[in-house]
Amino acid sequence: MDDDVTFAVLGTGGIGRRTLDVARHKDGLTPVAACDRNGVAVDHSGLDVDELLDATEGNIASGPEADGDTPATPESDYASDGGAAAVEGGSVDDGTATATDGVKQAGEDAGIVASAQGEPTETPIDDVIAESDGIDAVLLALPNLEHDFIPRVAERFAGAGYEGVLVDVLKRSRVIGMLDDRTDALEESGITFVCGAGATPGFLTGAAALAAQSFVEVEDVEIWWGVGLKSGYEDNRGTVREDIAHLDGYDIETAREMSEEAIEELIAEHGGQLEFHDMEHADDVLLERAGICDAEDVSVGGVLDVRSDEKPTTTTVRVTGTTFDGERGTNTFELDDATSMEANVNGPALGYLKAAVLRNRAGDYGVYGPADVMPSF
Amino acid sequence: MDDDVTFAVLGTGGIGRRTLDVARHKDGLTPVAACDRNGVAVDHSGLDVDELLDATEGNIASGPEADGDTPATPESDYASDGGAAAVEGGSVDDGTATATDGVKQAGEDAGIVASAQGEPTETPIDDVIAESDGIDAVLLALPNLEHDFIPRVAERFAGAGYEGVLVDVLKRSRVIGMLDDRTDALEESGITFVCGAGATPGFLTGAAALAAQSFVEVEDVEIWWGVGLKSGYEDNRGTVREDIAHLDGYDIETAREMSEEAIEELIAEHGGQLEFHDMEHADDVLLERAGICDAEDVSVGGVLDVRSDEKPTTTTVRVTGTTFDGERGTNTFELDDATSMEANVNGPALGYLKAAVLRNRAGDYGVYGPADVMPSF
Repeated sequence: MDDDVTFAVLGTGGIGRRTLDVARHKDGLTPVAACDRNGVAVDHSGLDVDELLDATEGNIASGPEADGDTPATPESDYASDGGAAAVEGGSVDDGTATATDGVKQAGEDAGIVASAQGEPTETPIDDVIAESDGIDAVLLALPNLEHDFIPRVAERFAGAGYEGVLVDVLKRSRVIGMLDDRTDALEESGITFVCGAGATPGFLTGAAALAAQSFVEVEDVEIWWGVGLKSGYEDNRGTVREDIAHLDGYDIETAREMSEEAIEELIAEHGGQLEFHDMEHADDVLLERAGICDAEDVSVGGVLDVRSDEKPTTTTVRVTGTTFDGERGTNTFELDDATSMEANVNGPALGYLKAAVLRNRAGDYGVYGPADVMPSF
Repeated sequence: MDDDVTFAVLGTGGIGRRTLDVARHKDGLTPVAACDRNGVAVDHSGLDVDELLDATEGNIASGPEADGDTPATPESDYASDGGAAAVEGGSVDDGTATATDGVKQAGEDAGIVASAQGEPTETPIDDVIAESDGIDAVLLALPNLEHDFIPRVAERFAGAGYEGVLVDVLKRSRVIGMLDDRTDALEESGITFVCGAGATPGFLTGAAALAAQSFVEVEDVEIWWGVGLKSGYEDNRGTVREDIAHLDGYDIETAREMSEEAIEELIAEHGGQLEFHDMEHADDVLLERAGICDAEDVSVGGVLDVRSDEKPTTTTVRVTGTTFDGERGTNTFELDDATSMEANVNGPALGYLKAAVLRNRAGDYGVYGPADVMPSF
């Protein structure tokens, strides 16, 4: 059926798994392939998601994930140790999914191969590419490896003549330009790529783009998020470490070198809540790319609470500008505190994926950001 | 240049004129044609908007306009007297622009022909169609004539093999289906049509669609607008009359038959503020069409103040739903009270127009609503 969308997930860490979970609640979305570092599962009539999720439980990277609502920094232990090592070692396929260390795994054959649907493989991405004729869209839920890892994966899909959608949930500003550099190859293949399609960048970038419509001049975009991570804390220790680099007096190196005890101490000092300002999220580049404002007029910050699942602050987008008739105002988009980070990353990721499939089917190829595309429901 | 967009405006009532006005503040938008009932102005190197606006000042229909933020009803005096009569009389072209009565005009040669750029014509729409090779997009800022007037105009563009964008700012739910019925003809011609692209439906429909992204199930969409219309009252008497039909104890017929005095009395009884509930706006159909919720789960209402330019209430979109992880919440989109109805109709109309041109150039044809397209800035 023309309205149905088949999709694959590269990576079965937190984002990949939750995407499969959320897709169960959506009409017309059929997951047909999933892979991680060691395995691949393909079923063109639809994966058994329940079985896959059960079998891969605990398959969540502790390194920074490429999601949107949580505050991960560009650089990471993950990239320089696990991921980059694998990539630099010449085996790009090794880097598809969960972290090489710090990952909770369910035994020797951890990950997808623990599922009855999984097969072990040394080349998971190639295996998915080999099946891509029957795949409308691919969500790249890959960990933050090297900066050009996602662009290079996209290139491999283009090299194989893939005609379909790629979506990522990256946060790194610099990746956008790397994708733009590959526009010709992607267009030639027939690929519609939506980059930065999580919560921030993603959902909130889109909200800012929309909120700007009252104005002819945008002077300021303020993205402010709240995340309550009590039950998710154990699974996100790597992310929290990354976040610390954003605090005053810390940077990526000092955060990386901190002991677990030092981190716990710091968190205790902050009463369990870490507050961030001027984060390096790609929202700025994506809004500038869409012509809405200068990157420097965009600020991203928020509060992470590792001792509560309640959001410590309300996730809000505030867009201030001037109307054609000379009035100055601020439009506001506010997410209910009851909506979890997971809901706000994975819902939009699938929404952007669905919208991109419609565009792809209409022959609309190239690289788009979340400020260019209205996500489908 | 590929990024530049040339556009025409059919109709130089309030919406058409303000669209030209707002476009002056936007990059890459060049108005090259405008027409009204009696005249047409074409200049492929760009119209002199200042001159055109000056010459056509006061050229504002008092009948209900097809804009988004003000509450006009489907039926109108305009449709049954001025417009429909013209259409039924066989001269569809007569119905392009301002009202036949109740319109403030600047003398005998009122409207576009009062401009040095204008030429009198009996066939304004055909004249624009004849120039449409050089026109990327056409904003149909036509008054609410017969229900199928806009669809029939679209058909004429398709009949002439127009390859480009059409955008309307209609509110009538039933028109959407009429456009859908013409999808094949529009696609064959190469037309990308965005319907209902004002404030509501339009901007606020898009906000609702975006706000729904946290949820897997949407139970309720509440669109609530405020409009302060003191300085615009004289120009919008027809709209106000239409609005009265939405009040308890009134309908279209009784509102139509009221004397000016009776209307003034009624407004006085309400202290200058009219409050509306359960209005028939196309937001419901457009959100259902986009798969977000049932039409009946969408409510549109608001408050119109004819004695103040301050908004009597804040324009707000509230979307309530359930997340994939079972939480219930309400996401909110709020426009600053300082943003006028005009800013919120005409900014988005041009934003949708620009976005539609990008899609059209990519070969993406058909009928879209404001919940399907992210407006460009």
